[in-house]
Amino acid sequence: MFRHTSEFHRWFSEQGRTHAYQVTPTPLDRLDGWDLDPDTGALRHQSGRFFSIDGLAVTTDHREVTSWAQPIIDQPEVGILGILVKRFDGVPHLLMQAKMEPGNRNLLQLSPTVQATRSNYTRVHQGNAVPYLAHFVAPRPGRVLFDALQSEQGAWFLCKRNRNMIVEVEEDVPVLDGFCWLTLEQVGELLGVENLVNMDSRTVLAGLPPMEPGLVPATAGTGSFREAVAGSSRPGARAMHDLTGLLSWFAEVKAARQLERTRIPLSQAKGWIRSSERVSHESGRYFSVIGVNVKADSREVGSWSQPMIAPSGRGVVAFLARRVEGVLHLLVKAHTEAGTRDLAEIGPTLKCAPGNYEHLPAHRRPAFWDDVLCAPPERVRLDVVHSEEGGRFYHAENRYLVVEAAGDFPLEVPHDFTWMTVRQLMGMVRYSNHVNVEARNLLADLRLMP
Amino acid sequence: MFRHTSEFHRWFSEQGRTHAYQVTPTPLDRLDGWDLDPDTGALRHQSGRFFSIDGLAVTTDHREVTSWAQPIIDQPEVGILGILVKRFDGVPHLLMQAKMEPGNRNLLQLSPTVQATRSNYTRVHQGNAVPYLAHFVAPRPGRVLFDALQSEQGAWFLCKRNRNMIVEVEEDVPVLDGFCWLTLEQVGELLGVENLVNMDSRTVLAGLPPMEPGLVPATAGTGSFREAVAGSSRPGARAMHDLTGLLSWFAEVKAARQLERTRIPLSQAKGWIRSSERVSHESGRYFSVIGVNVKADSREVGSWSQPMIAPSGRGVVAFLARRVEGVLHLLVKAHTEAGTRDLAEIGPTLKCAPGNYEHLPAHRRPAFWDDVLCAPPERVRLDVVHSEEGGRFYHAENRYLVVEAAGDFPLEVPHDFTWMTVRQLMGMVRYSNHVNVEARNLLADLRLMP
Repeated sequence: MFRHTSEFHRWFSEQGRTHAYQVTPTPLDRLDGWDLDPDTGALRHQSGRFFSIDGLAVTTDHREVTSWAQPIIDQPEVGILGILVKRFDGVPHLLMQAKMEPGNRNLLQLSPTVQATRSNYTRVHQGNAVPYLAHFVAPRPGRVLFDALQSEQGAWFLCKRNRNMIVEVEEDVPVLDGFCWLTLEQVGELLGVENLVNMDSRTVLAGLPPMEPGLVPATAGTGSFREAVAGSSRPGARAMHDLTGLLSWFAEVKAARQLERTRIPLSQAKGWIRSSERVSHESGRYFSVIGVNVKADSREVGSWSQPMIAPSGRGVVAFLARRVEGVLHLLVKAHTEAGTRDLAEIGPTLKCAPGNYEHLPAHRRPAFWDDVLCAPPERVRLDVVHSEEGGRFYHAENRYLVVEAAGDFPLEVPHDFTWMTVRQLMGMVRYSNHVNVEARNLLADLRLMP
Repeated sequence: MFRHTSEFHRWFSEQGRTHAYQVTPTPLDRLDGWDLDPDTGALRHQSGRFFSIDGLAVTTDHREVTSWAQPIIDQPEVGILGILVKRFDGVPHLLMQAKMEPGNRNLLQLSPTVQATRSNYTRVHQGNAVPYLAHFVAPRPGRVLFDALQSEQGAWFLCKRNRNMIVEVEEDVPVLDGFCWLTLEQVGELLGVENLVNMDSRTVLAGLPPMEPGLVPATAGTGSFREAVAGSSRPGARAMHDLTGLLSWFAEVKAARQLERTRIPLSQAKGWIRSSERVSHESGRYFSVIGVNVKADSREVGSWSQPMIAPSGRGVVAFLARRVEGVLHLLVKAHTEAGTRDLAEIGPTLKCAPGNYEHLPAHRRPAFWDDVLCAPPERVRLDVVHSEEGGRFYHAENRYLVVEAAGDFPLEVPHDFTWMTVRQLMGMVRYSNHVNVEARNLLADLRLMP
């Protein structure tokens, strides 16, 4: 237990020092345990497990470009991302883990109690048992506070999802090396630190049930943005649209939207250039598929090789927010990406890598580009850089932003957008595959950051 | 408007008399407008639209038999099933339609205001416009009371779903020939009549928002089953499991369940015998694919041909119900069928065609078989035969049953079952693809039948 987060930072640095980690970029055709099919270009593990990278052709009526091909990660297994909660003197604490992931720029980040692929916890790679796993598989001790199957990055994963769980226990839990208890306030403070709380933690934190009044982060006075977030998170918050209206908006979007996908050999993905080193887009945009060799002594396995997705530039994930009759509303968009499981998910106002669009004329950029990216600094309420999943993505960072629009910002929005209170978005997160990973992660920041 | 349902029955008989309908079984290779592929056995419309029938190989860890092949209907388009509501003197009335469907044993049944495939309403078949459609496509007049994408019969449809809508209007609505206004009480009474209210109506009715107190069907006194249903439908009804627990149960079931599907040529579906007449299972069980010629004068098109699925016997769809501390709970099961979109949906306690299982020893029959099928008559609270979708299924009938188990019926149930209040099941129906069509239809009976 840390009385102050400075103590946490000391402990965390210690964790970084005591473990030796090494990540070396390696050509795709020299990844130990992986087969690079010379004809199709597909990458598969020799065990047939973990994940593979292949080609996908996409046609949709929704995006700025209506058809394209791309490499995509196929990982059909459902893993577990779980956070254990326990009250000490009545105050909920979360059991978090200092965990190295090869794709993290800073290697070590704060991860959930359990972060395990099915291959992990069924011991495909013959590593050590996953600590605390027993709390997340039935029959389990403790009380489930949250449990949903949630999607991950649809731009890079094909229909991937993980089971996100929060379980509260009453019994004593031994704190193993590399783990620590943090209060919600402490986690909230750490969310404000660049590249510290990993994606797996943030997606699970988005599912935290509404907190007791005493646990809402301290606010800076009535009328402040924090106060507005707290107000918009309350059950009674007066919303522009009721739940029936929001569900109808979502049904309408899905009923109208087209998304056709065909698996293709990666070698036939138009515009993508393969070498033994990597697979990249001819424009230099979007992302590359690269390989890494990893040496670590604190993981279930000491060393391994794997392909990863390395984005070409930093992305932006943003909500525009506006007070409507005093109640803060978030502008959400029904997003469709290559890997979206069911046509569309509720996402942030803007989610893109600006570098992929800067060369295009304004009308071919995503909606609300200027409102987010050219917002005056005094309207930016939240601004932090986080990493995406460091087990699959290499140096993948997004700038998470919340911009509060002025009171004259139009409430009338394009048909694939709608306004929701924070409470309504929290409600949607409870149902699997309704809210995409970027919106969930930004919601976690919004709810917990001081 | 009918003061009494006897007036409705007179009107309905009149509808049956004034329209000439004729359905003639026809060999599959002689269906006008349809191609029967001589090699694969697939049936497709020459326009490439409507639907097709092909083969599917299924492997799952869940069913009594873990792998099988079967013909299946592929109809990727999302149609609209919509009911228009309007208050007369404060009393909500539903606009219903007397509609002929070729698969109905009695041809004419009561259907929603709008029952249109996407091909219908985009005029692929060059028929007349769909009446009242404007109320169900944006921008529309009226207030949406319910709107969700809902699955249909997973045993026969591959991932099929329709948009289920209820829209309330205030303005005058002309009543066209073949349409009528019915109160909820009248619809409830008609649900008790064999093969009268069609499947499309029942699935939409399951989505009716909770009714004002005055609209709950009259009850036969405290402690009666009707009173228990009303009590279990109230917001405050004390449930065994809270929403978090139910969502966790559903996530757990899905995370554990396997469902692998491969499209195969119908000609390679093991155990199925093709002739120019029909496709049937060698055992004579399950269902057949047959063809029909249809002549009608009250449809958008006067005559057409189509393949249909004809089940081998009548099915059973049943809830076991039990009072738990005075509150009625339904025993639901997470069902996986060949065409289930996302691994599992919440379904009735028992759903099967008994004829497919009677030859098997008791341990290979579905759970709770005896509790439902051998229940003493005094425990049967609801018992009515309805038709399934008469546009695709030929003489497909299910017996819809609710059996109230005694107070000593075990609350401990297998892991793929759980107990829900009526209110909780109504809540799940609001979210697309959570509750299967059989459970929704039985819920409509349970909520509305007197």
